[in-house]
Amino acid sequence: MSWQRPDGRQPHQVRSVRFERAYNRFATASVVASCGDTQVLCAVTLQDGVPKFLEGSGKGWLTAEYRMLPTATPQRQSREFLKLSGRTQEIQRLIGRSLRAAVDLEALGERTILIDADVLQADAGTRTTAITGGYVVLAEALNQLVAKGVLERSPIRHAVAAVSVGLLEEEPFLDLCYLEDVRADIDLNVVMNDRLELIEIQGTGEHNSFSRSQLNRMIDLAEAGIKELLTAQQEALYSSAS
Amino acid sequence: MSWQRPDGRQPHQVRSVRFERAYNRFATASVVASCGDTQVLCAVTLQDGVPKFLEGSGKGWLTAEYRMLPTATPQRQSREFLKLSGRTQEIQRLIGRSLRAAVDLEALGERTILIDADVLQADAGTRTTAITGGYVVLAEALNQLVAKGVLERSPIRHAVAAVSVGLLEEEPFLDLCYLEDVRADIDLNVVMNDRLELIEIQGTGEHNSFSRSQLNRMIDLAEAGIKELLTAQQEALYSSAS
Amino acid sequence: MSWQRPDGRQPHQVRSVRFERAYNRFATASVVASCGDTQVLCAVTLQDGVPKFLEGSGKGWLTAEYRMLPTATPQRQSREFLKLSGRTQEIQRLIGRSLRAAVDLEALGERTILIDADVLQADAGTRTTAITGGYVVLAEALNQLVAKGVLERSPIRHAVAAVSVGLLEEEPFLDLCYLEDVRADIDLNVVMNDRLELIEIQGTGEHNSFSRSQLNRMIDLAEAGIKELLTAQQEALYSSAS
Amino acid sequence: MSWQRPDGRQPHQVRSVRFERAYNRFATASVVASCGDTQVLCAVTLQDGVPKFLEGSGKGWLTAEYRMLPTATPQRQSREFLKLSGRTQEIQRLIGRSLRAAVDLEALGERTILIDADVLQADAGTRTTAITGGYVVLAEALNQLVAKGVLERSPIRHAVAAVSVGLLEEEPFLDLCYLEDVRADIDLNVVMNDRLELIEIQGTGEHNSFSRSQLNRMIDLAEAGIKELLTAQQEALYSSAS
Amino acid sequence: MSWQRPDGRQPHQVRSVRFERAYNRFATASVVASCGDTQVLCAVTLQDGVPKFLEGSGKGWLTAEYRMLPTATPQRQSREFLKLSGRTQEIQRLIGRSLRAAVDLEALGERTILIDADVLQADAGTRTTAITGGYVVLAEALNQLVAKGVLERSPIRHAVAAVSVGLLEEEPFLDLCYLEDVRADIDLNVVMNDRLELIEIQGTGEHNSFSRSQLNRMIDLAEAGIKELLTAQQEALYSSAS
Amino acid sequence: MSWQRPDGRQPHQVRSVRFERAYNRFATASVVASCGDTQVLCAVTLQDGVPKFLEGSGKGWLTAEYRMLPTATPQRQSREFLKLSGRTQEIQRLIGRSLRAAVDLEALGERTILIDADVLQADAGTRTTAITGGYVVLAEALNQLVAKGVLERSPIRHAVAAVSVGLLEEEPFLDLCYLEDVRADIDLNVVMNDRLELIEIQGTGEHNSFSRSQLNRMIDLAEAGIKELLTAQQEALYSSAS
Repeated sequence: MSWQRPDGRQPHQVRSVRFERAYNRFATASVVASCGDTQVLCAVTLQDGVPKFLEGSGKGWLTAEYRMLPTATPQRQSREFLKLSGRTQEIQRLIGRSLRAAVDLEALGERTILIDADVLQADAGTRTTAITGGYVVLAEALNQLVAKGVLERSPIRHAVAAVSVGLLEEEPFLDLCYLEDVRADIDLNVVMNDRLELIEIQGTGEHNSFSRSQLNRMIDLAEAGIKELLTAQQEALYSSAS
Repeated sequence: MSWQRPDGRQPHQVRSVRFERAYNRFATASVVASCGDTQVLCAVTLQDGVPKFLEGSGKGWLTAEYRMLPTATPQRQSREFLKLSGRTQEIQRLIGRSLRAAVDLEALGERTILIDADVLQADAGTRTTAITGGYVVLAEALNQLVAKGVLERSPIRHAVAAVSVGLLEEEPFLDLCYLEDVRADIDLNVVMNDRLELIEIQGTGEHNSFSRSQLNRMIDLAEAGIKELLTAQQEALYSSAS
Repeated sequence: MSWQRPDGRQPHQVRSVRFERAYNRFATASVVASCGDTQVLCAVTLQDGVPKFLEGSGKGWLTAEYRMLPTATPQRQSREFLKLSGRTQEIQRLIGRSLRAAVDLEALGERTILIDADVLQADAGTRTTAITGGYVVLAEALNQLVAKGVLERSPIRHAVAAVSVGLLEEEPFLDLCYLEDVRADIDLNVVMNDRLELIEIQGTGEHNSFSRSQLNRMIDLAEAGIKELLTAQQEALYSSAS
Repeated sequence: MSWQRPDGRQPHQVRSVRFERAYNRFATASVVASCGDTQVLCAVTLQDGVPKFLEGSGKGWLTAEYRMLPTATPQRQSREFLKLSGRTQEIQRLIGRSLRAAVDLEALGERTILIDADVLQADAGTRTTAITGGYVVLAEALNQLVAKGVLERSPIRHAVAAVSVGLLEEEPFLDLCYLEDVRADIDLNVVMNDRLELIEIQGTGEHNSFSRSQLNRMIDLAEAGIKELLTAQQEALYSSAS
Repeated sequence: MSWQRPDGRQPHQVRSVRFERAYNRFATASVVASCGDTQVLCAVTLQDGVPKFLEGSGKGWLTAEYRMLPTATPQRQSREFLKLSGRTQEIQRLIGRSLRAAVDLEALGERTILIDADVLQADAGTRTTAITGGYVVLAEALNQLVAKGVLERSPIRHAVAAVSVGLLEEEPFLDLCYLEDVRADIDLNVVMNDRLELIEIQGTGEHNSFSRSQLNRMIDLAEAGIKELLTAQQEALYSSAS
Repeated sequence: MSWQRPDGRQPHQVRSVRFERAYNRFATASVVASCGDTQVLCAVTLQDGVPKFLEGSGKGWLTAEYRMLPTATPQRQSREFLKLSGRTQEIQRLIGRSLRAAVDLEALGERTILIDADVLQADAGTRTTAITGGYVVLAEALNQLVAKGVLERSPIRHAVAAVSVGLLEEEPFLDLCYLEDVRADIDLNVVMNDRLELIEIQGTGEHNSFSRSQLNRMIDLAEAGIKELLTAQQEALYSSAS
């Protein structure tokens, strides 16, 4: 018999998604993005200028920082200090690449966008939640630039969202929670744009391998989940704009 | 003519205080403590064992970590890395000392209490808000230990709360907001227990000096403000226990 | 017209592969693994004992370190100091995970295997060359343990090899060299075992997106390339054993 | 019966104060400031220019560094490395703020004053001795600038001195030595100018609380002690000038 | 009876010396310099500009970095990170000073030469091998500058080579291998130019002392060894130029 | 005409030497060792136990730390932080090796001796002054152990002293002061024991080379200087013992 999900979801069901807005009145835009019990505070800052390697290029830049609050997990974790763990660096690089894919950096001009993703509560899927929520604050901040007349039109090229899929007892399940995550043989993170093209795909089978047909079925689930997330993002952006 | 407060408060008025609970379902206890627009996520973790210098003493320990999220202030601040700023270290040491004063460390036994104070939004008074909110999660966590039968009675000795007072145009004002804080000549932080005895007093007149009579008037205001905060703490603890 | 490879290879052709042995007489086993002009010195060290989180578990561990010599690239690069770049950490974690998948860690017992991968010359594909060469020294070191009677049989579960594929002008090309790598829209790294099951897949489209059919065609090429690499590994191991 | 001081002093008596001059022939000015067995080498350096945040403001700056030699205490202490302890940072920030209060930074012009306070021997009161001795070298260095015609008049606004007071068995005692310091319930550091106005007040009751009337009696003692220290400073400066 | 060398050499015999060229096609010049089983990858990089303290002086600079690969020694050594060991710093400073003595820095002009010395295999004498090999890549790189017409003539003043001598059972032996090095009472490193003048001499008798006559006999041996090394360098440079 | 010494000394004359005792009442033994205007505070600490690599060997250990106070030089120098400079590490390793040569580490037993050498004023020769003064506090501390009956006899094997010699205008001069040091072509540091055997010799000719006959004349001068220093050490130890 196959895996029974602890929260009773169907294999292809994402957890409930929310974007709570206006959380932080000082950031240009911020939301607490939630996928089930995973909560990530996503905030965006716009700065003039770009890193050295882009100066004079006319292009903008986007970078991300990702951290967990110490009490985000059942067992308190020490703050990262002196050096970031490899895991943290991987994740913040992934968030940065994924959200850069959402933006036309030439149209942005020599500006730098910083996305801060601080995990308030971690029940698996923090990196995908950070990307999905990060897109919302990114789009909103760029809309504000247009509203203020700084830019003529938003440099957003595509919406971007992300979700995880795992293999449990050889079958794929969408958007794993923590209890599933620790049991999964394979962990696949998929980032897509609103044309359902792939931006990033990262699949890891440290303890197990996976076949190409399993890979395809996992991407099928991811695609379905990302469609839902894209809709939720649009609704959040629509309600904020009105 | 004297200083007009930007939010119209009377000189002796504290900002509205709230303790939003159950924020983080993984920490033993957590609240978002707010004083006006200042918001500090306070969470408590209980660990068995004590630092080396207390091993075998039968006594417990309490320590605090304080940080600002990068987007807590109008101007994004870089995360502290490699080394904490002197300001951050001073503040987390102050929080630790103030809350240790609330606890009978012998009655606690060889346990360590960690208080995490993460500033979500900073409109001045973050250290005092962290102490006031930190007491709430501390008391609640120790009540849980009693409820579980781990301890016979709570090792809380006194409630502890803190507030700031400033001199503006030579007159004292209670619980400064950011716009006042940058204008104040003198900045005084006062920590008291529920018998209105002093736990800590820190007054700084870098750009100005202050007389002993001004000091006394500032402490008068602080005392009045701390009374209100102690009441708010009790209500929060009462409602959480019921 | 489509992309013409600077070295005249066909789209599905890997660069010439070599494993020069006996390079370092002090390491348990070492090779200089070359894919074209990319050269990685792979060495293995066996140590008794395991990291703390595995003590008493009866299981072994494998970990990898990856570095570039400063003069490995046309432009000298500073040595990484104080902190590893995110890139370096990502790569050494990938090497570690990929090679752990090759080993039955229970059969290994409480031993730790360290793989050092030092890039002597970098012409793209250093991480995949490190994995492919790392497998050779790993297998040889474990064969030595069997030959010495320390282990009854080698804890190798599968051979593991890795290759990159890129999209250039919308078409997939196998095993990119540097001149291609900087021009590629999409960069996909694939790690497979000797049953041609997937161990890791990492695809990045920072500047572009890719369709699922393109993904499939890229994996087709990777699979063909990995077959060749697996054969070269076997020949190297066979010649070293004889 | 009340506390008997180990060195037979009256409760309101400061330890003997000395400022040995001309210690270091390379520093602009230096003294070994002693309060009893506490000895702090205070040296001053004047540099052109100011930190970034003051450039172009026309104002000067003053900052302090505080360290203990490893053998300053009965138990050798490791040198602080990689990061300063919170205690060290607190102290050097306090010294800096206190001595900045002595100077009219506008009259100083865009110059930076560095005060180095290196504790040669520590018998409690090192931070207050550093402030009191720091003022002497500061005033002397600025007098030299006047003597050389660089400045028309000294930018000194007020002399500044500091002393500690402690509560032992509920009674206040001035200028604690180490044996008293470890027994004290309350530790209060007071910095005043030569009008006996407060510059800084820091009182800590980690293990005990203190009443407002105790606070007032402690400040009374501090005021008396600071008067003596101000006189000693004047004598030292007078003899150096003649 | 006196010390018998493990490799049967006479006391005054150096190990066989080789310089394998063209190792790394990206560096300006690189060799693997070998003295017996000691192998050091020496590579040179030329950069425009000089460190701050030389800007505008018209003079060039030369600096060296020295590292061991982790598997260069029978017992794997951890990579140096966060801070270089005192030993590593001493060695790279010695290499830098010795090779600067080879160059007329004024004739070089405002250019910086970086010598990277990475030890692939360590059988004692790594620092002297690095100097001897470092000279070869240095001379070759400067010859290339002449060949390209950037410089009119090579700024090389003298060839420079280095060798170690040790006292074993009170007698001097040239160019110790590892088995000898750990048994030696005295360790002397000598750097000379092609006029057999001394550039550096460093002798250490931590566990023993040595007489002036022993010092003289050790330098006699060093002089003889350095003559051979200078010849080998010339041959290597001659064959590369032809 | 040859070099005229700025302080009128003969080429073979050392500067006046003093050892001021009882400087720090907390250290086991401490002196301010002076050679002319160079002043080094040398203090010794004895600790039970040894570093890991000697545990159970029955042998003791000695190690040294060397630092400059920021104001020891005419131009204030920043404190070393995060990492020690190569120069500082070289010097403290030299001090440690030189003073270990003075002690029979087996007779010392599993104890660790720490020598702290803090330069109060630097007029060249700080490392040699630290060694010469370090021997005085070392011998005194071990004499105290004998006096207390902890050891039967002092584990001192030999007195150890050090001096520098330089070549100026091709002639050797003993014990250079700063004005000479910056002009010298060659800098030689010599450490000898009380049988005038060599412990360490370090000669550097970065900008110039030196002949073997010059080396011999420099050692002649060093030997003469060390004889004087050994006498001064004996007098200091004799007066402290009486």
